[in-house]
Amino acid sequence: MIKASIIGATGYVGLELIRLLASHPDIELASLASQSYAGRRIEAVYPSLRGCVSKEICAPDAGAIGKNSDVVFTALPHGASGEVMPLLASAGCRIIDMSGDFRYDDPQVYEKWYGQPQPAPEIANQFVFGLPELHRKKIKKTRHVANPGCYTTASILALAPLLKAGLIQPDSITIDAKSGVSGAGRKPSQANHFPETDGNFKAYNPIAHRHTSEIEQELSHAAGQPIQLGFTPHLLPVKRGILATCYARLADRPDEAAFQKAYADMYADEAFITVNPHGDLPELKHVVGSNFVRIGYILDERLSRVLVVSCIDNLIKGAAGQAVQNMNLLFGLPEGTGLMSPAWYL
Amino acid sequence: MIKASIIGATGYVGLELIRLLASHPDIELASLASQSYAGRRIEAVYPSLRGCVSKEICAPDAGAIGKNSDVVFTALPHGASGEVMPLLASAGCRIIDMSGDFRYDDPQVYEKWYGQPQPAPEIANQFVFGLPELHRKKIKKTRHVANPGCYTTASILALAPLLKAGLIQPDSITIDAKSGVSGAGRKPSQANHFPETDGNFKAYNPIAHRHTSEIEQELSHAAGQPIQLGFTPHLLPVKRGILATCYARLADRPDEAAFQKAYADMYADEAFITVNPHGDLPELKHVVGSNFVRIGYILDERLSRVLVVSCIDNLIKGAAGQAVQNMNLLFGLPEGTGLMSPAWYL
Amino acid sequence: MIKASIIGATGYVGLELIRLLASHPDIELASLASQSYAGRRIEAVYPSLRGCVSKEICAPDAGAIGKNSDVVFTALPHGASGEVMPLLASAGCRIIDMSGDFRYDDPQVYEKWYGQPQPAPEIANQFVFGLPELHRKKIKKTRHVANPGCYTTASILALAPLLKAGLIQPDSITIDAKSGVSGAGRKPSQANHFPETDGNFKAYNPIAHRHTSEIEQELSHAAGQPIQLGFTPHLLPVKRGILATCYARLADRPDEAAFQKAYADMYADEAFITVNPHGDLPELKHVVGSNFVRIGYILDERLSRVLVVSCIDNLIKGAAGQAVQNMNLLFGLPEGTGLMSPAWYL
Amino acid sequence: MIKASIIGATGYVGLELIRLLASHPDIELASLASQSYAGRRIEAVYPSLRGCVSKEICAPDAGAIGKNSDVVFTALPHGASGEVMPLLASAGCRIIDMSGDFRYDDPQVYEKWYGQPQPAPEIANQFVFGLPELHRKKIKKTRHVANPGCYTTASILALAPLLKAGLIQPDSITIDAKSGVSGAGRKPSQANHFPETDGNFKAYNPIAHRHTSEIEQELSHAAGQPIQLGFTPHLLPVKRGILATCYARLADRPDEAAFQKAYADMYADEAFITVNPHGDLPELKHVVGSNFVRIGYILDERLSRVLVVSCIDNLIKGAAGQAVQNMNLLFGLPEGTGLMSPAWYL
Repeated sequence: MIKASIIGATGYVGLELIRLLASHPDIELASLASQSYAGRRIEAVYPSLRGCVSKEICAPDAGAIGKNSDVVFTALPHGASGEVMPLLASAGCRIIDMSGDFRYDDPQVYEKWYGQPQPAPEIANQFVFGLPELHRKKIKKTRHVANPGCYTTASILALAPLLKAGLIQPDSITIDAKSGVSGAGRKPSQANHFPETDGNFKAYNPIAHRHTSEIEQELSHAAGQPIQLGFTPHLLPVKRGILATCYARLADRPDEAAFQKAYADMYADEAFITVNPHGDLPELKHVVGSNFVRIGYILDERLSRVLVVSCIDNLIKGAAGQAVQNMNLLFGLPEGTGLMSPAWYL
Repeated sequence: MIKASIIGATGYVGLELIRLLASHPDIELASLASQSYAGRRIEAVYPSLRGCVSKEICAPDAGAIGKNSDVVFTALPHGASGEVMPLLASAGCRIIDMSGDFRYDDPQVYEKWYGQPQPAPEIANQFVFGLPELHRKKIKKTRHVANPGCYTTASILALAPLLKAGLIQPDSITIDAKSGVSGAGRKPSQANHFPETDGNFKAYNPIAHRHTSEIEQELSHAAGQPIQLGFTPHLLPVKRGILATCYARLADRPDEAAFQKAYADMYADEAFITVNPHGDLPELKHVVGSNFVRIGYILDERLSRVLVVSCIDNLIKGAAGQAVQNMNLLFGLPEGTGLMSPAWYL
Repeated sequence: MIKASIIGATGYVGLELIRLLASHPDIELASLASQSYAGRRIEAVYPSLRGCVSKEICAPDAGAIGKNSDVVFTALPHGASGEVMPLLASAGCRIIDMSGDFRYDDPQVYEKWYGQPQPAPEIANQFVFGLPELHRKKIKKTRHVANPGCYTTASILALAPLLKAGLIQPDSITIDAKSGVSGAGRKPSQANHFPETDGNFKAYNPIAHRHTSEIEQELSHAAGQPIQLGFTPHLLPVKRGILATCYARLADRPDEAAFQKAYADMYADEAFITVNPHGDLPELKHVVGSNFVRIGYILDERLSRVLVVSCIDNLIKGAAGQAVQNMNLLFGLPEGTGLMSPAWYL
Repeated sequence: MIKASIIGATGYVGLELIRLLASHPDIELASLASQSYAGRRIEAVYPSLRGCVSKEICAPDAGAIGKNSDVVFTALPHGASGEVMPLLASAGCRIIDMSGDFRYDDPQVYEKWYGQPQPAPEIANQFVFGLPELHRKKIKKTRHVANPGCYTTASILALAPLLKAGLIQPDSITIDAKSGVSGAGRKPSQANHFPETDGNFKAYNPIAHRHTSEIEQELSHAAGQPIQLGFTPHLLPVKRGILATCYARLADRPDEAAFQKAYADMYADEAFITVNPHGDLPELKHVVGSNFVRIGYILDERLSRVLVVSCIDNLIKGAAGQAVQNMNLLFGLPEGTGLMSPAWYL
């Protein structure tokens, strides 16, 4: 049994990790750590776990946790890595980090979008960008994984095949993304107070959301040239799920078969990605509760554009599920172990 | 024009007061006061008001506000009256207080349920319990009004006619009430964080909610004998509205006509109360957005019980609308002025 | 008093018309007509109206209704005009039609997007496209009004000033629009069954929604050249409201002042349109329940693009409210009569 | 591997059965049958299943399905059993029926509450009421199971221990229950059209809901005397979950330890039932997505009453999950196989 721990166990990503790891056949939960809840029991914080998981929450003592764990999931605010990561790394465990701290090829890009220098630069190069569908080989060989952002995962997977195949104009991309409120985390705020959010809808952080830079980095790789794109996140009055509507101009005449082929070339063997037939667009309820990515597209001949819609569960494929998928790769387990449940639909 | 001010203008009840007063033909908004937002403009706090209401928020200087106002609505936490009310009262304005501070005949009942002595006892007797359908005459003659609680209004109006007519057993009452989240106010909390509330439902404060004591006080008057009853509030994942399901044993054989008569005797001339035909129960959407109270009931012959369902909008008939109704009474205006809009339904 | 009737009174737009007309000071409700509910009372179909509106629903006999009315609002499915409109027109009343039947300059565009010939061509030229902010003068002089679509209203008002001022590239427009479910009408369907819609989100009718053609017609006028654009509607799990996120490339270097001027030139005197300061984007709750349009925008220097967000209540400014605004113009009343209530916010 | 089939596979209970059975280690899905969808693929009807379950839907030919299955789950409207069940029974498979048809000891009670004679009386006595926590021994020995209703499960489990221990007055019970909309099934209706349900709340079917009779039957067994009680269902604007608030008068002085013991005596070894400490009431989100039952209670000394709150997921412990639990018992598998996932919380 692999001993897995979570630092930041009481946030929403922590809870999803617990949920997934509790039913993972090869995992034993070692430590659940949280600054604010140390000493309480996890099933008192989340009574939904009663009868399934019972454990005392410990303080986030990275050195000790690293020593008693084979793998540690860190679900901390960005920037917190500076102190924690070196301790974990030198304790010998594997790390799967949910923050943005180690997702960048170029620390200057991090610094520009996060407004602070990249923490723990001495171990940054041990981290691989953990999108298995694009970087599986590198993940299998690395020690630590920087788990991608939620918007990032939905957006990159929608567009990478099209850029790689040269089917869309690289400077024409607009991503209009919509996320459920759990993406903002567990901490209450005026903006996410129920009476303010229910029945509401809004764009936020336009032109400046940090995930823009992650998407650009990865799509630049796919396109083989630097890419800049427009990304606008919106807040849906739902708990979970991300739907990204992506727009681009066609590089050439509309050619359905070429699009189908581009997606098949990259995803035909992927367990978690399904691409719908032309014109059939996925909905949030086709993914919520699961680790699946659903992609659909439609060619607009009149305007010579394409519309791609991509959906994920922000807490699963956009965070905890992808982290477990990465863990499976790190430890040589079948990639889908513990992750094959279908979406809830209701 | 009557000069009306609000102390505590930026909370949800404050916002509803502004909305109602802004379209009231006899009202001029004098001061909008708030501790935390003084100096900002109300339409910046609530952009929904842009183009309709434009005013700078002032500090809650009760003396000054009292002097420049004919009536002041106080929407403050209970207990805050100690400082504010004497200043307002001596400034000569009328007061309509939204808190529990002056709703009690007996200050000891207040002290027992609120855990602190009733503030400003020297002016307490100038306040009348502001449920117009029960106390219209007294309200018209008083200076100040203690506006009833939201659960209170729904519950009392459902049962008072039945107790007055002796149709139910006074010791058999159970009220299972459900409220929208705006009843908990504008301040964010873990419990009312959108991802915690959406899709959820729960009872809270069972057997100990303060409104129990208000309901008992008023229903004791209606029954002509002291009444104790069970009251359990629940939190609905909706923004607005209260639905109270009330249960009682029949005093006698089931008699539909007697029930109809009991309601008609009290409410036949009431503009804001509609009583449905036997067996036709009202729904939240029949009242949300309006000052109306909808009541329905069904006699259960098999068990010799009655079920009464009563619905109000917690922010309107349960707070701001009732306050305006009381203001109309205080100033000799037609009682329904500014309040006759139908519910939104959608 | 102006005698106003509604044909199609029991749908959601009909209900909103009743709500608005019931509190309009110059209106008397003449006939409420509905095929399926004739003979029932409107307050039995919508108990939210009890105590406010009480009227028997009549059959949709256009000739008779036209004769006893000064103005008739027709809220019927598109294509139904063929029979009804000539009867109404020859009865001498004014008509405000909520369908798409008379919105087009060119009947061939109608035929192309609606898949059927434009009905009642003999009276089509008596209808003016009823967007007061663009066509006020013509509306004041006409007999009949073709009330614009909901998506249409939000989209056109967001972009017309920018095209007129030449600030954006006319072939670069993408509109990603999101609507509440009431836009789909009152008739139940699998797609809008509560358990299928709550917590869900999806795009629908991509590249083929009929409102595309209306938006293109009006923005072509504004631009002074033919415009084609991308328009994708999405379904929000909320009851009411439309938010349109509009993307375009800048024609020139980003110039905040020029954008402000473009909006001010067209909307400075408009009672129902508010334009936010640069970077401040409106939310659905800033408009729901009101006839207001809120517009915000942000210039993206990095990509040389602009993002415009526009919000309306789909049933009010997007249907019933705009219809009443048009009625006010037709009858020479102050344009805002009965329409100045602020949004609900909650 | 046990071959399991579902007749009525495309309804919401059918979908939940598929979801649970697909991840059950001992099950192979044999036939998915549906009248209206025969010939289509299940993953086209529910795209949430893509990548997990892929199967053509067959016609509901009970004889053939019975022959190729070890167990058949029937999720059909009540009354449909007349034709289907004898065919299944004689084909030799086990049956787990989700309808009310075989839940009654006394066919006359069925006839009274369902308004029609009990179908297939010749095989009725082969069915056991499938509430494992009350009837485990009998279920293990029977061939067929009548799976209890959703309200039924929540209500019976809340109160049976208290009646068995004589702690409450048997004639004093009131159950105020609230259910999510999925309980009404997949078929769209005006009442459950999203714009009618979102933000709404209502009681329905008061004093006449069929589950009343099931609850009375089982609680009479627990009490050892015939019981009649009040049961009022309400419709919550959520997709899933039932919360039952139960009221009763105490038989004796309030005695916390006696209540704790009563629950422990019956449920201490139950995997799916957790009883909270006195005063700690469960919420919907503590169970939704799981097969768990959460129970909490509070003694009201002032009124000599008790309040019990019980929560389940209506589609899991209230239907599909309990059915799988029963299947595990029928086939001698560990009772929790495939059912131990914690609730989703979000």
